[in-house]
Amino acid sequence: MTTMNQQILLASRPAGEPTASNFRLVQTPVGEPADGEVLVRHHYLSLDPYMRGRMNEGKSYIEPQALGEVMGGGSVGEVVASRNAGFAVGDKVVGMGGWQEYQLVGASQVATLQKVDTTHIPLAAYLGAVGMPGVTAWQGLTQIIAPKAGETVVVSAASGAVGGAFGQLAKTRGARVVGLAGGPEKCAYVTRELGFDACIDYKLHKDLESLGGALKSACPGGIDGYFENVGGMTLDAVLLHSNTFARIAVCGMISGYNGEPIPMLHPTLILVNRLKLQGFIVTDRLDLWPAALQELGSMVASGKLKYRETVAQGLASAPEAFMGLLKGRNFGKQLVKLV
Amino acid sequence: MTTMNQQILLASRPAGEPTASNFRLVQTPVGEPADGEVLVRHHYLSLDPYMRGRMNEGKSYIEPQALGEVMGGGSVGEVVASRNAGFAVGDKVVGMGGWQEYQLVGASQVATLQKVDTTHIPLAAYLGAVGMPGVTAWQGLTQIIAPKAGETVVVSAASGAVGGAFGQLAKTRGARVVGLAGGPEKCAYVTRELGFDACIDYKLHKDLESLGGALKSACPGGIDGYFENVGGMTLDAVLLHSNTFARIAVCGMISGYNGEPIPMLHPTLILVNRLKLQGFIVTDRLDLWPAALQELGSMVASGKLKYRETVAQGLASAPEAFMGLLKGRNFGKQLVKLV
Repeated sequence: MTTMNQQILLASRPAGEPTASNFRLVQTPVGEPADGEVLVRHHYLSLDPYMRGRMNEGKSYIEPQALGEVMGGGSVGEVVASRNAGFAVGDKVVGMGGWQEYQLVGASQVATLQKVDTTHIPLAAYLGAVGMPGVTAWQGLTQIIAPKAGETVVVSAASGAVGGAFGQLAKTRGARVVGLAGGPEKCAYVTRELGFDACIDYKLHKDLESLGGALKSACPGGIDGYFENVGGMTLDAVLLHSNTFARIAVCGMISGYNGEPIPMLHPTLILVNRLKLQGFIVTDRLDLWPAALQELGSMVASGKLKYRETVAQGLASAPEAFMGLLKGRNFGKQLVKLV
Repeated sequence: MTTMNQQILLASRPAGEPTASNFRLVQTPVGEPADGEVLVRHHYLSLDPYMRGRMNEGKSYIEPQALGEVMGGGSVGEVVASRNAGFAVGDKVVGMGGWQEYQLVGASQVATLQKVDTTHIPLAAYLGAVGMPGVTAWQGLTQIIAPKAGETVVVSAASGAVGGAFGQLAKTRGARVVGLAGGPEKCAYVTRELGFDACIDYKLHKDLESLGGALKSACPGGIDGYFENVGGMTLDAVLLHSNTFARIAVCGMISGYNGEPIPMLHPTLILVNRLKLQGFIVTDRLDLWPAALQELGSMVASGKLKYRETVAQGLASAPEAFMGLLKGRNFGKQLVKLV
């Protein structure tokens, strides 16, 4: 009996918000590994905001997702067949397997697969706090914002995988940490469980003045660093309350992924406050990953880095879970559980 | 007979573009130096775009100009009386004397006065290429843009004191240098006399698409660095043609000095292209001035750094010359000659 591999393809490019019709579920037979190849069965898939950018045709920071191909993305799983000396059946691995149940990793792609140790760290954490989101937070913190003890840093999407890790890492550097999250439940989690000094419920603030007032209250000494995950009005409000020499790590601008341009209202503040705004993509600096993963892994293993997961069940649930993620319906890292 | 000191005061704050009525010419007697004080007769005053920002009441990067006081600004001149052991009659000095014929420098202000050597460098150059504008260009180039040989850098206001110095300094680092200036005469000067690789006449380009096309033609390999002097549409056009990891030194946003906010249309490019935008003020890093002045001074003395001056005659001409500067009517460094 041939094992079948369920896959989700990009069927069409969205105009504005993605809909179910942009995705197509198909079944194909699982192949047998040829020499040098490895077959991985996925346990969890990662859903991330950057995937929305890849669904557009236009220029972005990574290649667009090809039409008719499996949606790309991070995955963790277990080796179920191997003709590669570096991998044995039963090995737990993290890779870029995409939205499918199995990944046949070609000999030239094996370098994208990393064996991981699940003795003290849950497998799924390698897609979150000890994976790309955690390293993203670490890079923005250490390479761009670099807060001194006593400085105030702000992070949007604070209950998410990146924002939560960022805030907890910043606390270990002695910073005052203020988050932005949507709704009282997320805000309570950010302050009580993650230990942020304050969290602003952005849903209570519909205009720049209101959000600015909340930032001013939560950051009485002004803002020295901002980890940008959302763009739009939040960025404008933060810039208006930034201190001289503040640093802004620009990592995501989810508001703009649907294609509409979102202007920055007061770029003159870059000069007035001598701001540094720097965009970055975590994969540009692969050389930094080992140091980041070491800190993140030891914090997760010792329980010092907390995180939450929203887990959708089964591959077919991925599109709906992804659309929810883009609307902030997830709480913490959004995963799809397959096994 | 008492010598009289002509002074120009800020009479009122402008709403939009400054007008003659914002300034008032007065005469006051020149004082005698008390113990520790120095009396300087100004030979040249400097007019600079940043002065427009100081005429507003609101927050800017330096204190607003006080109403009813002498307009501040750089000046060069000669010591005509001294009761300070550090200065002798006949010494040539650069300082911050403002829009007046004489400056009585108080004992506590003497540190703002620097003696300069005019053997190989003209006195007025200490207000331009070997002064604040030159050091501004040097800092943006070396501290933020740091071009590698073969990279393409762009500078707006290229025929001005800052832009001209920036481009010539960048050429010595092996960069391809493209300027933006207003009108064919300025553009010809920028390429033929200053040695830029190309210069775009921004007056020929009234919209983003047209200016973008000109940038694309002049920068076939894209833009790796931009020294921002003007803001607005030029910044938008440069961002749209920037390469991955481009650096933008934000030094002036003259378009915004009249108070109207000028949004940045596509801040998402900061992420997509992993740009670094950094605002800076030359006086934030006084520690860098000696190294900058050494390079600039030796280049001017040896004729390798060229510049042009527009010289208004007499103190009463300063307001009109300043308003012309804000409209780009000057050609090179705008000075007022008093002696």
